[in-house]
Amino acid sequence: MTMTSDAERADERFLTDFAELSAIGATPRGGLERQAATPDDGRSRAWFESWLEERGFRVFKDAIGNLFGLYEFDAEAPFVLFGSHLDSQPLAGRFDGAYGVLAAAHAAARVVAEHRSAGSTPRYNIAVVNWFNEEGSRFKPSMMGSAVHTGKLGLQTALTTCDPRDVTVQDALDAIGGRGDFRGLEVSAYGEIHIEQGVSMFENGITIGAVASTWCAYKYEIVVRGEQGHTGSAPMASRQDALLGASTLVVAFNELVRSFPVEHLHTSVAEFTVLPNSPVTIAREVRLLADMRAPETAILITAFAILEERIAEIERATRTTITIESTSTWDSGPFVEKGVALVEDAAALCGYSSGRVLTLAGHDATNMKDVVPTVLVFIPSVDGISHNEREFSRDDDLVAGLAVFERVVASLVEGGLDPES
Amino acid sequence: MTMTSDAERADERFLTDFAELSAIGATPRGGLERQAATPDDGRSRAWFESWLEERGFRVFKDAIGNLFGLYEFDAEAPFVLFGSHLDSQPLAGRFDGAYGVLAAAHAAARVVAEHRSAGSTPRYNIAVVNWFNEEGSRFKPSMMGSAVHTGKLGLQTALTTCDPRDVTVQDALDAIGGRGDFRGLEVSAYGEIHIEQGVSMFENGITIGAVASTWCAYKYEIVVRGEQGHTGSAPMASRQDALLGASTLVVAFNELVRSFPVEHLHTSVAEFTVLPNSPVTIAREVRLLADMRAPETAILITAFAILEERIAEIERATRTTITIESTSTWDSGPFVEKGVALVEDAAALCGYSSGRVLTLAGHDATNMKDVVPTVLVFIPSVDGISHNEREFSRDDDLVAGLAVFERVVASLVEGGLDPES
Repeated sequence: MTMTSDAERADERFLTDFAELSAIGATPRGGLERQAATPDDGRSRAWFESWLEERGFRVFKDAIGNLFGLYEFDAEAPFVLFGSHLDSQPLAGRFDGAYGVLAAAHAAARVVAEHRSAGSTPRYNIAVVNWFNEEGSRFKPSMMGSAVHTGKLGLQTALTTCDPRDVTVQDALDAIGGRGDFRGLEVSAYGEIHIEQGVSMFENGITIGAVASTWCAYKYEIVVRGEQGHTGSAPMASRQDALLGASTLVVAFNELVRSFPVEHLHTSVAEFTVLPNSPVTIAREVRLLADMRAPETAILITAFAILEERIAEIERATRTTITIESTSTWDSGPFVEKGVALVEDAAALCGYSSGRVLTLAGHDATNMKDVVPTVLVFIPSVDGISHNEREFSRDDDLVAGLAVFERVVASLVEGGLDPES
Repeated sequence: MTMTSDAERADERFLTDFAELSAIGATPRGGLERQAATPDDGRSRAWFESWLEERGFRVFKDAIGNLFGLYEFDAEAPFVLFGSHLDSQPLAGRFDGAYGVLAAAHAAARVVAEHRSAGSTPRYNIAVVNWFNEEGSRFKPSMMGSAVHTGKLGLQTALTTCDPRDVTVQDALDAIGGRGDFRGLEVSAYGEIHIEQGVSMFENGITIGAVASTWCAYKYEIVVRGEQGHTGSAPMASRQDALLGASTLVVAFNELVRSFPVEHLHTSVAEFTVLPNSPVTIAREVRLLADMRAPETAILITAFAILEERIAEIERATRTTITIESTSTWDSGPFVEKGVALVEDAAALCGYSSGRVLTLAGHDATNMKDVVPTVLVFIPSVDGISHNEREFSRDDDLVAGLAVFERVVASLVEGGLDPES
C-alpha cells in the first residue's frame, strides 16, 4: 500500500486543475488555441476567476483586461505579484503561459494557507495576474497587457488596436466581459514561471532554470512596394512585383545568420501580408514583420548593416521600394542577481538540479523587470518545441517548478527581493 | 460652326454612359474596385439592367449570376451573344471588362435600331451578357460565370465556393439579388471586345487587334508545409520554416524565365497565404498560386521540368515539403480564322489600322471559343498597364473599337460566323 502525502495530493490537484484548464480551447492534436479576447480566452479567464474566488482571492480587472486576484493579509501592506498569461498562439501548446498562471496561483494559495495555519502575517500581500494578450497573434504588439501596466504602451493605443477583421481590442474585450475599472496595482516585486521554449535545459538535464538575462531583439515592420499589373500580360522586364521583392528579402534575412558563429543570431519573418493577394494581379505591396535576436547588441548592429546593403540590392533587382516603417527593440539585460540566486537556492532546497539560463523569447517578466525587481523561473520543454501543438513538458517538471516557485513566492512575500534586505 | 453628326452623337452617348458606369465603385485615384458580388458590383449590374430594359431588351439572370439582355427579332430564331464582365480586380482600372460589356450593348442596340428602321429581320436574335466573376479575385477560379455556362465548371461547385471571409458565391449573389432561374441561352456564335492589357498594340500603333490565338497557361496551387515554432527560441538549424521555403520558391519561379528567350515565358506568384501568420510563430504552411504562360506548350513543359528540380532542392535546403495540389491549364489555340478576317475587314471598312495579336490573358471568350465560333477584338492599353488604377485607353480608341464591334455584331446576326456561310 502506497501512502499519499499531503504534498503529493496538492500536486495531483495542480495537475488535475491544469488538465481542466487545458481543455478550454483544446485542439484535436493535443494543443490549444485560445487567442487573446476570443470566446475561449474568455472561458479560460472565467474558469480562473472562479478558481481564485473559491480560494479567497478578490478578483479585479483593469482597463486593458489584465485579471488580478488579490489576497490581503494586511490592508496597509503593499503587494508582490506573480503570474503569466492564459492566451495562446494559433494551434499552440498547452504550457506556454497557462502553466505559469496556474503555478503562480497554486503557489500563492499554498503560501496563503501556510501563513493562515501558522497565524503569521508576511510583509507583503499577494497578487496573482493573468496578463492580457501576451502572444500578440491576434492583436499586435505582444506582451500588451504588461506593456500597458508598465507604461510602455498607451492604454488608448492598445484599446484601439485592430485584429485582421477590424475588431478593436476594446470591443473584443468587452464582448467577453474582460475589462474593468481596476487601476493597476503598485507592486514591489514580480515573479513568473514559464516553460523554456528552447532546448538547452532539456538537452543538459536541468530541471530548474534561473533566468539570468534576456537576449536582445530588433523587430522591424517592413513594407515592400511595387505596382499592380496583370500576371499574364505584363512584360517580365518591367514588372515591379512586391511579392518577388519581399520573398527575396525573406531569403536574404535568413542568410544573415551565415555571417556569424552558429546559433549566435536568430532571424525570422513570421508575418507576411500580400496586397491585393489576387490570383491574376501582381502584388502592389507586402507588409512583413521581421525579427532578429542575439545574446549581444553588437551582433544585431552588424547584422543590420549587412541587411541594409542587401535591401538596396533587392530594390534594384526587383524594381521595388523597401521601407522599414518601424523598429522596436529590447536590450539584452540581466535579471536581478538576488532573484537568480534565490531560484538556485530554492531548487537546491527542493532537491532539483538547476542552472543559469538565458531567455531568447520575450515574456511579461521582460516588461516587469524594467520597473520592479523580477525573478523568472524556467522548466524544460521537451525537444525545445513551442508555439506548436506538440509543445510538451513532463508532469514531474511541472510539479518540480511549482515546488520551487512556492518557495520563491514565500520568499518574496517576506521581502526576498527588497533592495535593502 | 461644327456640325455634329448622328454618329458623333451616338459616340458621345457611349462615352457619357461609360463615365456613368465607371463612377460605380470609383476609387480616388481614377480606378475602380468592383469585386464580384459586392454591393458595388450589384449597383453596376442594376445600372446595366435598367440600361438594357430602357432599350427594349428583356433581362434574365441565370443561377450563377450571368446577366443576359435579349432582343428577339423572331421568336423562332436562335441567338448570337456579345459581352464581357462588369466585375473588377481590387484597385483596378475602369476599362477591363466594363468597356466590353458597354460596347457590346451599344453595338447591339445600334444594330437593333438599324434593322428596325430598315424593317428587316436578321437571321439571329441578339443577346448581350455580363458574365459573373471573370476576375476571380474574391472567388476562385476566374472566368467563373462563363465556365459554368460552357459546362467547364459545375454549378454547385461554383455556388459553394467561399471568399476569404467564408461567404459563399450563392450567399453573396443572393445578397445583391444577382441570381435567377434563367436556363442559359443556346447561342450560335459569341463576340467580345476588350482592352489588350499588354503593350504590343500601343507600341506598334495598332488601333484594332484581331485576336488570332491565346497563349497557353499552367496554373498551380502549391502548398509548402513546415512546422510551427517560436521565432526567438527555436534553433536555426532545425527550423522547418514554411515561409522561408515558399519565399525561396517564389524567387526560383521568377528565375525560370532566364532559361528561355526574353519574354517567351511569363511566371508569377500572385496569391500567397501564410499560416498562422503570427508575429512570433514560425509559419507552418504557405499556400500559393503560381502561373506560367507562354506562346507554346513546349516552353511550359520544359519550364515545369526545371521547376520540379528546384522544388526538390528547396525542400532539402529548408526542411519543408512542397506539394503541387492542383494544376489547371489552358492550351494555346487559335480563334476561328473567319472571325479574325471579319475583324480585319471591319477595321478596314471603318478606316482603322488593325493587326493580328495574341492574348496572354484569359477572357470569357477563351471559354466560349471552345464551344461556339468566337471572335475577340482588342483595343490598345496605354503603356500596357492593367489590373491597376492607372489602366487607360483613349476615347478615340474606345469609339473606334465600338464602331468596329458594331460591324462585327451586324455580321454575326446575319450568320457571319456560321460554318456553312
